[in-house]
Amino acid sequence: MNAPRVTRTHALVIAAAGLCLLSAAALSEDPAPETPAYTSDNGLKMPERYREWVYLSTGFDMAYRADIRMGHHMFDNVFVNPASYREFQKTGTWPDKTMLVLEVRGARDQGSINKNGNYQDTQVMGLEVHLKDEKRFPGKWAFYVFPGRPVGRLLPQTEDCYSCHAAHAAVDTTFVQFYPTLLPIATSKGTLSAQYRAEEATAAAPPAGAH
Amino acid sequence: MNAPRVTRTHALVIAAAGLCLLSAAALSEDPAPETPAYTSDNGLKMPERYREWVYLSTGFDMAYRADIRMGHHMFDNVFVNPASYREFQKTGTWPDKTMLVLEVRGARDQGSINKNGNYQDTQVMGLEVHLKDEKRFPGKWAFYVFPGRPVGRLLPQTEDCYSCHAAHAAVDTTFVQFYPTLLPIATSKGTLSAQYRAEEATAAAPPAGAH
Repeated sequence: MNAPRVTRTHALVIAAAGLCLLSAAALSEDPAPETPAYTSDNGLKMPERYREWVYLSTGFDMAYRADIRMGHHMFDNVFVNPASYREFQKTGTWPDKTMLVLEVRGARDQGSINKNGNYQDTQVMGLEVHLKDEKRFPGKWAFYVFPGRPVGRLLPQTEDCYSCHAAHAAVDTTFVQFYPTLLPIATSKGTLSAQYRAEEATAAAPPAGAH
Repeated sequence: MNAPRVTRTHALVIAAAGLCLLSAAALSEDPAPETPAYTSDNGLKMPERYREWVYLSTGFDMAYRADIRMGHHMFDNVFVNPASYREFQKTGTWPDKTMLVLEVRGARDQGSINKNGNYQDTQVMGLEVHLKDEKRFPGKWAFYVFPGRPVGRLLPQTEDCYSCHAAHAAVDTTFVQFYPTLLPIATSKGTLSAQYRAEEATAAAPPAGAH
């Protein structure tokens, strides 16, 4: 009689598959989701566990215009989804569905035993996502802002951030020149943008009229 | 004849197990190792992929003594191994084998389109690991420094860092008061150290003689 044996075989396979799911869950330890989730009205759900993504860098009081001065100190932390980080390490550029999160925090100074310099406040003061979705956005990338809400608002392609990133970003409209672990990779892989290379060459050249 | 059936069953189980390993590897995506690796002469191997661990925070020019002033600006980034981060989220404190990595980078100012403030240099200027290994170290925790080498040197328990962390750290000898996502957790879980709570109470009290 074959039936019981088949059943036993199936049972073993099902048990193995069950163990498989269990061990996969144990190994992956419930990783933070990294797929963009859109709402029906064109919003982007905040990737809630972006703080478990890969950290790229932090700026302090950075500004791209000399006439912008804030009345207080600020930190901005940048994170990227892990799969895209791993791909960047291999290729020097970003795959589709890359999400970069910019988190802005105020700076505190005198607190606990700190006597000089600044550390980060517990309050997040701003959040922005820069997202690559080649089929969805005309320029492949889009910016979303999250003004105190869990769903981000898409910034129109006419906003300054798009043209500034397109004109000055080191790799694929992202400011890799400010991400210390990625700039050497992009340099060695030859993925720096033509605009960025031209700007760097101009900055390195002696001023006109210099001897 | 039973033998071929058993073989077929085994083959199916082995195939399922193979698929299991494959899918586990695909899910875990080769996670960065997070177990401390010691050398035979009491050194600690640098956790090479700590930049894929969970980011805690960044300080700018932080110093714990008012008379320490550096001639240049510095960033310090702190990372923790992911399993310990997840445990902290549940309990408000650190499990055994927790590793915190402090990475020091110089600060750059005028570069690319940055006009104000600072961003991080590609060169790492210092690395330190703060490691909990309850059975190995007298005070449960130890500091290792990595002066330009892949193997860290254990700092003796008489160094100032041990007494300073023991006296002022918010949670289990670690400066959670400077890690913005962890301080609220420790506060709500009631795991703030007695010393830290006493210091905060003193700092919040009006000065003696104030009306």
